Formats: sequence, structure tokens, C-alpha cells
Amino acid sequence: MIALSDVARTCGIAFEGSDRPIKGINTLKDASEEEISFLDNPKYLGDLKATKAAAVFIATKMAAEVPAGSIALADDEPYLKMALASKLFAPALVDDTAPEAVIGEGTYVAETATIARGAVVGKGCTILPGVYVGSRAVIGDGTILHANAVVYHDCRVGSNCILHSGAAIGTDGFGFAHTKLGEHVKIYQNGNVVVEDDVEIGGNSTIDRAVFASTLVKRGTKIDNLVHIGHNCIIGEHSILVAHVGISGSTVLGRNVVMGGQSATAGHLEIAPFTTLAARSGVTKSIKEPGGTYAGFPLMGHRDWLKLQGILARLLKR
Amino acid sequence: MIALSDVARTCGIAFEGSDRPIKGINTLKDASEEEISFLDNPKYLGDLKATKAAAVFIATKMAAEVPAGSIALADDEPYLKMALASKLFAPALVDDTAPEAVIGEGTYVAETATIARGAVVGKGCTILPGVYVGSRAVIGDGTILHANAVVYHDCRVGSNCILHSGAAIGTDGFGFAHTKLGEHVKIYQNGNVVVEDDVEIGGNSTIDRAVFASTLVKRGTKIDNLVHIGHNCIIGEHSILVAHVGISGSTVLGRNVVMGGQSATAGHLEIAPFTTLAARSGVTKSIKEPGGTYAGFPLMGHRDWLKLQGILARLLKR
Amino acid sequence: MIALSDVARTCGIAFEGSDRPIKGINTLKDASEEEISFLDNPKYLGDLKATKAAAVFIATKMAAEVPAGSIALADDEPYLKMALASKLFAPALVDDTAPEAVIGEGTYVAETATIARGAVVGKGCTILPGVYVGSRAVIGDGTILHANAVVYHDCRVGSNCILHSGAAIGTDGFGFAHTKLGEHVKIYQNGNVVVEDDVEIGGNSTIDRAVFASTLVKRGTKIDNLVHIGHNCIIGEHSILVAHVGISGSTVLGRNVVMGGQSATAGHLEIAPFTTLAARSGVTKSIKEPGGTYAGFPLMGHRDWLKLQGILARLLKR
Repeated sequence: MIALSDVARTCGIAFEGSDRPIKGINTLKDASEEEISFLDNPKYLGDLKATKAAAVFIATKMAAEVPAGSIALADDEPYLKMALASKLFAPALVDDTAPEAVIGEGTYVAETATIARGAVVGKGCTILPGVYVGSRAVIGDGTILHANAVVYHDCRVGSNCILHSGAAIGTDGFGFAHTKLGEHVKIYQNGNVVVEDDVEIGGNSTIDRAVFASTLVKRGTKIDNLVHIGHNCIIGEHSILVAHVGISGSTVLGRNVVMGGQSATAGHLEIAPFTTLAARSGVTKSIKEPGGTYAGFPLMGHRDWLKLQGILARLLKR
Repeated sequence: MIALSDVARTCGIAFEGSDRPIKGINTLKDASEEEISFLDNPKYLGDLKATKAAAVFIATKMAAEVPAGSIALADDEPYLKMALASKLFAPALVDDTAPEAVIGEGTYVAETATIARGAVVGKGCTILPGVYVGSRAVIGDGTILHANAVVYHDCRVGSNCILHSGAAIGTDGFGFAHTKLGEHVKIYQNGNVVVEDDVEIGGNSTIDRAVFASTLVKRGTKIDNLVHIGHNCIIGEHSILVAHVGISGSTVLGRNVVMGGQSATAGHLEIAPFTTLAARSGVTKSIKEPGGTYAGFPLMGHRDWLKLQGILARLLKR
Repeated sequence: MIALSDVARTCGIAFEGSDRPIKGINTLKDASEEEISFLDNPKYLGDLKATKAAAVFIATKMAAEVPAGSIALADDEPYLKMALASKLFAPALVDDTAPEAVIGEGTYVAETATIARGAVVGKGCTILPGVYVGSRAVIGDGTILHANAVVYHDCRVGSNCILHSGAAIGTDGFGFAHTKLGEHVKIYQNGNVVVEDDVEIGGNSTIDRAVFASTLVKRGTKIDNLVHIGHNCIIGEHSILVAHVGISGSTVLGRNVVMGGQSATAGHLEIAPFTTLAARSGVTKSIKEPGGTYAGFPLMGHRDWLKLQGILARLLKR
């Protein structure tokens, strides 16, 4: 916990009001009374009105909108100030004070694997050489971590999962605030990744940790090699992501979504359950209707894509 | 070896006939008398007639087609049952009973590299920190494994090869059977990867092991970073695969095929020798004619692609 | 240093003239009097005239063009001979004679991380398990190397950088000479990678070392997961490269270039400062004008791309 006055001072914001201990940053909607938040995009003004956040980074001209009970941290660059504050709440990468890792019965841990202090590994797991399970990470029962797979600090992997070599769970989400000089200030990614049971993750795939809360891969999903999942995504149950798929931040897939090789989505989208995306599809708008099959970039129905290719082939022959 | 009756019991199939020891699963065509097989796609009915397999997972209504000498393992979901059986034949990831690894003369092995029991490494190799060579894997002479490269169990890498950091040879092929509830049941990938001599494999590239038999990368092929090769592919001699190439399962490249950056192929295709695929090409049909140059997705001759771009540019100016 | 006569002998070229010690290979333009060079492409004939190189691999029929003071290494396949010679100058991957690594004050090095002899690591760094810092590599102050990140020999990473798991800095550039039989002969990549301060590099991204001199990532640039940067590229300050971006060799980005997910460039291009490339853009020609926004493959202005998609949508509805 950090005193709110210290947070303000770190960010160079004059602090007025009653001080209180703060445990982290969150969205206006999800922040508790022990967290601070920020308003960057006016479309969240409704969330501001209802927020429980202890304090809110906000543009000076909007400061009067902060509800009673919450303190305005007013500044011309509130998003940038939130980024500066985020570093204060970054969890320790290494924690020598944590208790020794707990390793379940019948679990094999190779000599050169590292299970950090504070981590918990279930029963009957196979942990091959070079694996790293970070501080406070949790692994379920019967899970296989192939050589050099990495589970970052504070992440959770369920039971009966398979992580292939080089899979990296919990890399930082790609989030920055920008200064007027064009520099990028890191928004510390203080959330985690939660991988549910029966998930397989291919070689050298990466799943970014959430900026707040969790990036979530639900039960039974199968992920091929070299796939990238951005921060705060939710991947529905029993989905299939083929090699080189890229999913941008905060996109939500329903259950049984199939994404072909090299297909990708923009961020902040919803993709309905049972959607099939052909190889190399590029999704830039949410898909609301379940069960459709799509192709192309920009995305269209798969039949339309085939028809369009026919039209182009005829243009070529003219 | 596992008794055929035990295989049937594991899959919940009533077993009739004379029992026998089984060593694995294979295609109808390649199965020996000590292996079992399956018929999923009716186009392999011809292979069924000629199979030597000890037993065949097959749809109940087709069971009568199984030839004399082979036993029908009849079920409504034969492919799913094969997937369940595949787990029985998965080779051990860790084998404490295997003899200590054999390391050739003049080979340097870094302290934090792991050469598993049962592995064999040739002469004059350089094995940098964090490398993992799995159980029963074989490495030729003069090969360099850069830091954190991984060669999974049972895979073979030839002489004078270079594997860059994070290259993962022998990750599981992406193969699943599907239940009526939309769950995916892993088909254990009990084959391996064979990399011949003089092959270079870039950083964080992945080559999936075969479901049966071998994924094969032939002599002299050069593979860039972040390339994915699916299970059971054959990559011809002296081919060139540029960064981010993706090759789906069971596709066969002839010799001296060049694939530009981010290009990709669908599965089960043949690409003729000396074919050149421009960057970002997407191949969905076999290429029979050697020596052609192609581009685009869907694929077309490179000249046609240039012409099509000219037509589109004119449409835009109208 | 290797005697020039020995270099010639290794390549099977008859040597005439006064012998001298050679320390490496470089371009005609940059070679010093202790280096050798080569002329492969006639467009560099101007550079030949002004070269300081001790000797030049050159086609027999062009040998008379080599200036006085430089020795012609004449052959029918000069580029191939240069490739053969490059191996002679490859720096040692492991150097037991180098002094022990220097580790700065307050730097945490995990037990299973390896800092090779001859390397230098600054103050206040965090080096997690499985990391490899190669011979003669240099890491600045306050840099975080996440589990299993790799910095190859002779590379330099600045201060306050973050390298995520599996990031590989200094993999070999993808450069080969080709024989008449279609074999590929490795051009040893004897340059390095230089990453300046305040750079973040995502999980499993790869940055290839230069063939000569340095691949350079300038100050403040942020690189997402699974990005590939080819040899001899220069990435300008404060650039943003989103997941799955691929940049081919020798391409130069100005400052504050933004490349969207899965976008890519061909090699030997220049991309002007403040250029924005939409997701999946494919750049095949240099961009001279700063500040533009582009999309598509082939590349066009972003507005044109939107217009073209409108035209195609109308074609589809006809």
C-alpha cells in the first residue's frame, strides 16, 4: 500500500484532501476504494459518475466531474500521470522474503528449472529443464511445462495443461502513454494471466499479462505455435488458434471460435461463439452473430470472399 | 507394447478376437502388424483393403470392410477413439532408466545445458547455456545449438547444423479429435522431427513433430526466425524459408523452394522443386510445375499479381 | 588477424602481391586498410574506386578496376568466395581465456542465468533465470532481462531496457551466397546488435546481428512480441513495432515510426520519420515524405486503401 499523497507527489501533482493508503490502479468501473483510476476518454464519463475509486487522474478542466468521495488528481496529461503512477504498484519480480515454493506430490522438476519462492505447483506435473515459474505463480495438477517454457510472476495455469518450449505466459501488455515529445512512457502491467484447465499452448507463443485484472484463456482452448494474445483478452472455451494468430488487446472471443493461421483481430472487439475465421482473416469490427464463417481483410463472409476472388480473376483475364 | 485388448478397453470398445501386443498407431498404408490404424475419411478405403494393421478404428457401419487378418475396432466416433488410444503410446518425456547421454569428443556443453539420459551428441558440437536435448534425441557432428535452443525427445538433428536461440524442434503437431460437445481431444504426436545435415534454423522458429513417422527437413535448407513448420511436413533440400513463414501440416516442398517473408501454405499440398513464392504468398492448392514464381492470396503467377495490382490502381483513380 | 595470403588460400584463389594482416570483411565504403571487401553488384563500382580495403573479391573480368593500393582477389564467383572467407573472421562463441564477467553493484543475477566470460553488466539490473548474456556482450544499468532472454556475444543493450522472455538479440542475419548447384553458403554474421537506452523488446522477438558493423535499435523504441528485425536494420528513436512485425535486412526507419501488427517491409528501404503503417501493411518502396499514414499490400495511402475497399465492396454487390 502506498499513501495517496506519495502517488500524487511522484506524478508531480499537488495533493489536497484526506490521505489514504492505495493498493493499485484500476478502471473507473472496477476500482475499489483502495484503488485509484483515471479518465482519459470522455466516453467513460458515465463510469466516472459511479466510480468508487479513492482518486482519479483527470484533465484539469474536467476535475469538477469527479464525484464526492473521490479525489481529483487534476493535470493536463492525466493518462501520462497514470502511467508514471503505475510503476509504484508493480509487483516484485524477485521476492526473497516469500516462502519456499510448494511442489505437489509426484511432480517432476528438472534440476535447471526454477520455481520461484512463493510459487505453488500442483501434483503430478512434469517440469522440464530451463522452465521458469515466477513468484506467486500457481500451476494446477498434471500440467506439463516443456523445456524453457515461462510462467511469469503472479500468473495462473490450470490443471492438465501443456505448455510447449518457449511459450511465455505473462509478458507485459504493450501499453504506453505518450509525451508531447513523442516519447513512450510504460504503463506497468500489474495484472496477470489466468489459463484455465485443459489448455495447450504451442511453442514460442506469448500471452500478455493484463494491465489491470487478468488476461483469460478459458478451459479446453488449444493454441498453436507463435501465437500472440494481447493484454486483457478473454479467449472463450474450446477455441482453436492456429499458428501465427495475433489477437490485439481487450478482444473477447466466445466459446469454440476457430482462427486460421496468420489471422488476426484488432483490439477491443467481441467475436461471437462458434465463429470461424479463415486463414489470414483480419477482423476490425465485432462479430455479433454466432456461428458465421469469415475471410479476408477487411473481413467479409467466406462466400463473399470467394465471390470477390472470382470477380478479380475475371478482371485479370479481360 | 500394449495388449490390443487393453487399447480397446481404454477406448471403451468391446474387444473380440485374438489378443496381440501393439507398439503404436500408424496410417492404414504404413501400419505394420504390430500397429493399429483408423479409417476416418472414406477416400482411404483403398488403403483399408491393403492394410497390414493389427486392428482398425472404424465406423460401426463400415466395420465389415476391414480385411481378414485385421480386427475392427468399431465405434460411432472412430477418430475420437484413435485420439484416446494415442495417449497410451506416447513416449516418456523423462526416462531415468536410460543410459547416460553420450557426448562426442571435442564437444562443448555449457553447465546449464541439459542433455537428457539416452541422448547422443556428436563430435565437435557447441552447446550453449540453457539448451535442452531431450531423451533419445540425436545430434550429429559439428552442430551449434545456441542458448536456449530445444530439441525434443526422440528428434534427430544432423551434422554441421546451426540452431539459433529459442528454436524448438519437436513441439507437438496441432492435432485433435473433436467431441460432439465441441471439446478437443489431443492426438498424441508420437512421431519425431528429423533435420538433415547443413541446416540452419533461426531464432524462435518451431518445427512440430509428426503424429506418426517424421517431420523432415532435408539437407542444406536454411530457415529464418519465427518460422512455423507443421507436423509431417517434408521440406526439400536447399530450400529457403524467410521470417514468419508458416507451413501447415503434411505439406511437401521440393528442393530449392524459396518462400518469402510471411508467406504460408495450407496443409496436405505439394510444392514443386525450384518454386519461388513472393513475400506474403498464400498457397491453397498444390503447385505441380517446377520453377514457377508466384504471389498473392489466393495465389497466382507473379506477373498476374503485378497486373492485378495495376488494374486495382486504375480502378482507384477512376 | 589473419594473413591475407591465408584468406586467399582458404578460398582457393591464387595470391599475388605483398602479404598483410587482415582483421575482417567490410563493405567497399567502410573497409579499413586492415579489412577486405568484395564487389558483387556493379552499382557499387563507384565505391570500389574509393575503397581503402586491403583486398577485394572481384569477378576476374573486373579485376583491373581495383584501385592501386588494394589487391584484387579475382574469381568467377567473388561473392561465394567472400562467404567462404567470412567464416575465418567469426568471433568465438565461447572464450575461456576472457576475464570473468563484470557485474555491477546491486544487480541481481539468478542462479541459472549465465553471464559469459568477457561480458559486462551494469548496476541495478535484474537478470532472471535462464538468461544468457554472451561473450563480450555489454548490458547497461537498470535493465531487466526476463527469464530465458538471450543477448548473443558482442551485442550491446543499453540502460533501463526491458527484454521479455525468449527475446533473442543477435541471432545471425539471414545471409547466404549460392553455388551453381543451388546450395547456400553461410555468410558469417560478424557484426553485432546495438540496442540503445529505454528500449523494451517483447517476448520471443528476434533481432538479427549485422553481417558487418551493427544492427541498431535507437533510444526509446518499443517492440511488441514475436517481432523480427533483420540484419543491419536501423530502427529510429521512439518507434513502435506491434506484434508479428517483420523488417527485412538493411531497412532504415526514422524516428517515431509506428508499424501495426503483422505489417512488414522489404529490405534496403528507408521509411521517413513519423510514418504510420496500418496493421498488415507491406512496404516495398522507400517512403520519403515524413508523417504519412499508409495501408495495404502493395502499400498505398490509408485513405486510398479505404476507398479501394469501398470499390471492391461495390463490385461484390453488383
